[in-house]
Amino acid sequence: MAASMLKVAVTGISKCARQVAPVLRTYSTSKVLCQDVPETVWKLGRLNHVAIAVPDLEKATALYRDILGAQVSATVPLPEHGVYTVFVELGNTKLELLHPLGEKSPIAGFLQKNKSGGMHHICIEVDDINAAIVDLKARKIRTLSEEPRIGAHGKPVMFLHPKDCDGVLVELEQA
Amino acid sequence: MAASMLKVAVTGISKCARQVAPVLRTYSTSKVLCQDVPETVWKLGRLNHVAIAVPDLEKATALYRDILGAQVSATVPLPEHGVYTVFVELGNTKLELLHPLGEKSPIAGFLQKNKSGGMHHICIEVDDINAAIVDLKARKIRTLSEEPRIGAHGKPVMFLHPKDCDGVLVELEQA
Repeated sequence: MAASMLKVAVTGISKCARQVAPVLRTYSTSKVLCQDVPETVWKLGRLNHVAIAVPDLEKATALYRDILGAQVSATVPLPEHGVYTVFVELGNTKLELLHPLGEKSPIAGFLQKNKSGGMHHICIEVDDINAAIVDLKARKIRTLSEEPRIGAHGKPVMFLHPKDCDGVLVELEQA
Repeated sequence: MAASMLKVAVTGISKCARQVAPVLRTYSTSKVLCQDVPETVWKLGRLNHVAIAVPDLEKATALYRDILGAQVSATVPLPEHGVYTVFVELGNTKLELLHPLGEKSPIAGFLQKNKSGGMHHICIEVDDINAAIVDLKARKIRTLSEEPRIGAHGKPVMFLHPKDCDGVLVELEQA
């Protein structure tokens, strides 16, 4: 029982801390903080996909479809994003195979540095992307653009700077 | 209706092809193949986790827990694997933060090359890891060891060679 209560207490403090980190310094106790701050305004959700940049889309698709036996989509050209995509369905989430489309593809540079291909980014859903962006900017997490833009799934997305996310390019997508 | 039937037919051929690729050359028609070969002996499952190697485990944990608001585990030292781990729960799957433990940590070299950290591998579940390994070896997918070993979750795992997986280190784990 004691352990269970401790867990609740710790969770409570953690939740408050998350809400008000930028203001924390002006208060002296966590109890005051919990009473004075608003409830969470946005929530992190599921892993939408892991994006993999590949130099040979046919070969990569064949690996997942024919050798590993996964269900894969048809190739989808997304000229406005400079990529061809193939989605690999894994049941709980997806892999998104990316291949450059056009001369200004945003993944061309990545494939220059990673000739065999590699993991390019992870995409995590959020319930309110605008609230998330305001909050994250206040916490000094840099974003790759000022405003969200419409992503490959037709929903608003925002990329967080890898330097602020342990070297990982993190995409947030409106759920 | 015709399109729907075509889809079923293509799916059927694909399934057969996956089962018997090493023997395909000895038969003349896919119909014969479908009648003669056994049903699928192993299946790819869910994405178990995405592993991220990080140079500062406290800071990385704080990012996901305090800034992004995810539920994270305590730090788990796994000396037999040469890593400390923190699991970040995303609802449908997990991120696994990895930090070197000991002088022979398998992720030390990765962090030498990627000072800020980065995505290290993806782990996908399979229902029969031994069958998967036999099948994948027959299809010329190289593995990083001869036999599966017990992974961080106490289950048999096997790593596939990144050169055969579009530059991605793929871990298969017995579900």
